[in-house]
Amino acid sequence: MSVIRNILNSRSSQGGNFFNILTQILGFKPKSITHYKKAFTHRSLNRKDEEGNAINFERMEFLGDAMLSAVVASHLFKAVPGGNEGYLTKMRSKVVSRKHLNELGKDLGLIKHVQTNIPKDQFGVNIHGNLFEALVGAIYLDRGYKYCKRFIYERVIDPYVDIEQLEGKVISYKSLLIEWCQKEKKEFDFEVYEDTGNDELKHFAVKLRINQRVVAKARATSKKKAEEKASKRAYYALQNKIE
Amino acid sequence: MSVIRNILNSRSSQGGNFFNILTQILGFKPKSITHYKKAFTHRSLNRKDEEGNAINFERMEFLGDAMLSAVVASHLFKAVPGGNEGYLTKMRSKVVSRKHLNELGKDLGLIKHVQTNIPKDQFGVNIHGNLFEALVGAIYLDRGYKYCKRFIYERVIDPYVDIEQLEGKVISYKSLLIEWCQKEKKEFDFEVYEDTGNDELKHFAVKLRINQRVVAKARATSKKKAEEKASKRAYYALQNKIE
Repeated sequence: MSVIRNILNSRSSQGGNFFNILTQILGFKPKSITHYKKAFTHRSLNRKDEEGNAINFERMEFLGDAMLSAVVASHLFKAVPGGNEGYLTKMRSKVVSRKHLNELGKDLGLIKHVQTNIPKDQFGVNIHGNLFEALVGAIYLDRGYKYCKRFIYERVIDPYVDIEQLEGKVISYKSLLIEWCQKEKKEFDFEVYEDTGNDELKHFAVKLRINQRVVAKARATSKKKAEEKASKRAYYALQNKIE
Repeated sequence: MSVIRNILNSRSSQGGNFFNILTQILGFKPKSITHYKKAFTHRSLNRKDEEGNAINFERMEFLGDAMLSAVVASHLFKAVPGGNEGYLTKMRSKVVSRKHLNELGKDLGLIKHVQTNIPKDQFGVNIHGNLFEALVGAIYLDRGYKYCKRFIYERVIDPYVDIEQLEGKVISYKSLLIEWCQKEKKEFDFEVYEDTGNDELKHFAVKLRINQRVVAKARATSKKKAEEKASKRAYYALQNKIE
C-alpha cells in the first residue's frame, strides 16, 4: 500500500511518469522498469518478493560497483598504454571514489525518485553514490553490459575522466587559463546562464570570452563544471599560445 | 630475436601452434592472437611497443581481474537472491581468491606457454593465477564481454562455484557421501583412469560405484576434482536417501 502511495506521490511531484524520467536519465529507453524500480526502493519500505527476499537497492549497489570497476578498468587500460598495474589501480580508485560517485548521483538528481518511508533528509551523505551504483546495476540487468558501458562512458568517463587531472598534473583548467590571461594582460569573462529547455536535469551554459571574443562554450549540470569544461576547451584551442 | 626464438621453442615443445593451443584452452577461436601473445609474455623479455610502452602480461592482469569480478558479481547476484551486499562481497572474494585463481591457471597448464628469459621454476607461486587473469583480460580485448563471460562461466563458475560449498555448509561432497556409505554399511569405490584423447589438457575420468553399481561418472582436470564432481552428482541423485 505504502509503495503505491509513494509511487503516486512521486509521480505527481515529478510531473511525469517514471518511464519518461528514466529515459531522460539513461539516455535510452529501458526495456523493463522492474529493475529500476528496485534501484529506487529504500529498505525502509520493507518490500519482499514471493520468496521473502528483501527488495531494495542495496544489493544492486554491489552489482553496479562491479560494472563501474570493469568499464573504468577497460577504459584506463586502453587510454593509458604506459600505465602499469599499480598506476591503473590508483587511477581507477580516483574515478570510482565515493566522493565522485556522490557527485554523479547528485547531478542526476537521483534522490528525487527514491521510494522511502523515512524522510529523505535523514539519508546519509552517501545516498547519492549508492543510488548511482544501484542504477548502473539496474542497467546491467535490463540491457546488459553494452548499455551499461555506454551509460558509464556518457555519464562518467567522457565528461569527467581526464587523465592529466587525475594524475594531479592539472588541478583545474580554469585556473590555468586565468593565470595565462593575467600574464598576457588579457581580459576574460565567463557568461553563465541557466539553460532553458525541459530537461529533467537543470543545465548551465557558459560562454568564455577573452578580450571580448567568445573562445569557448560549454554546458554542464553545474556552473562550476560548465566553466571548467569551457576553460578546458579554450585551453586546448589556445594550447600553442599557452606555454 | 629472443622473442622469435622463444615462440619457436615453445611451438616445437608444445607439438602444435599457439593458435590451436589457444582454441583448446579458450573453447572458441581467437579473432586475433596479438592480445594472447601479450598475455603470455613475461617482463623478463623486456619487450616494448613503438611508443616504448612495456609489453607483458602484468597490465592485463588488472583488466582480467576487473572482468572476473564483474562476471562473478553478476552470477552471485542472480544465483543468491537472498544474499545482501556483505554476503555477495564475501562470496565473490572466495571465488576469485588468489588460491583459487592459481588452481585454475595450473589446471589449464598456462605456464607451459609463457615466453620468458628467466627459468620458469623461478616464478613465484602466484604465476598461475596471474596468467589466468591476464588470459581473461586478453579474451576481453579480443572478443569483448560476451566471450569473456562465457569463458568465466565454463572455466570458473560452472565447474567450481557451488554456493553451499562456498558458504562452508558443505566442505566436500566426497566426504558427505563416504559418511553416508559408512553409516548405511554400503561399499563404495572410485575407479579413476587418465582420460585418453588428444586434448591439450590432461583429464581424469572417474566412475563411482556403490555396492558394485555405477551411480555416477565425472570428468575433470584432476583426480580429486573428478571424484568430487562424481560425489556431488551421486549426492544429488541420492538426495532423498541421504537425510
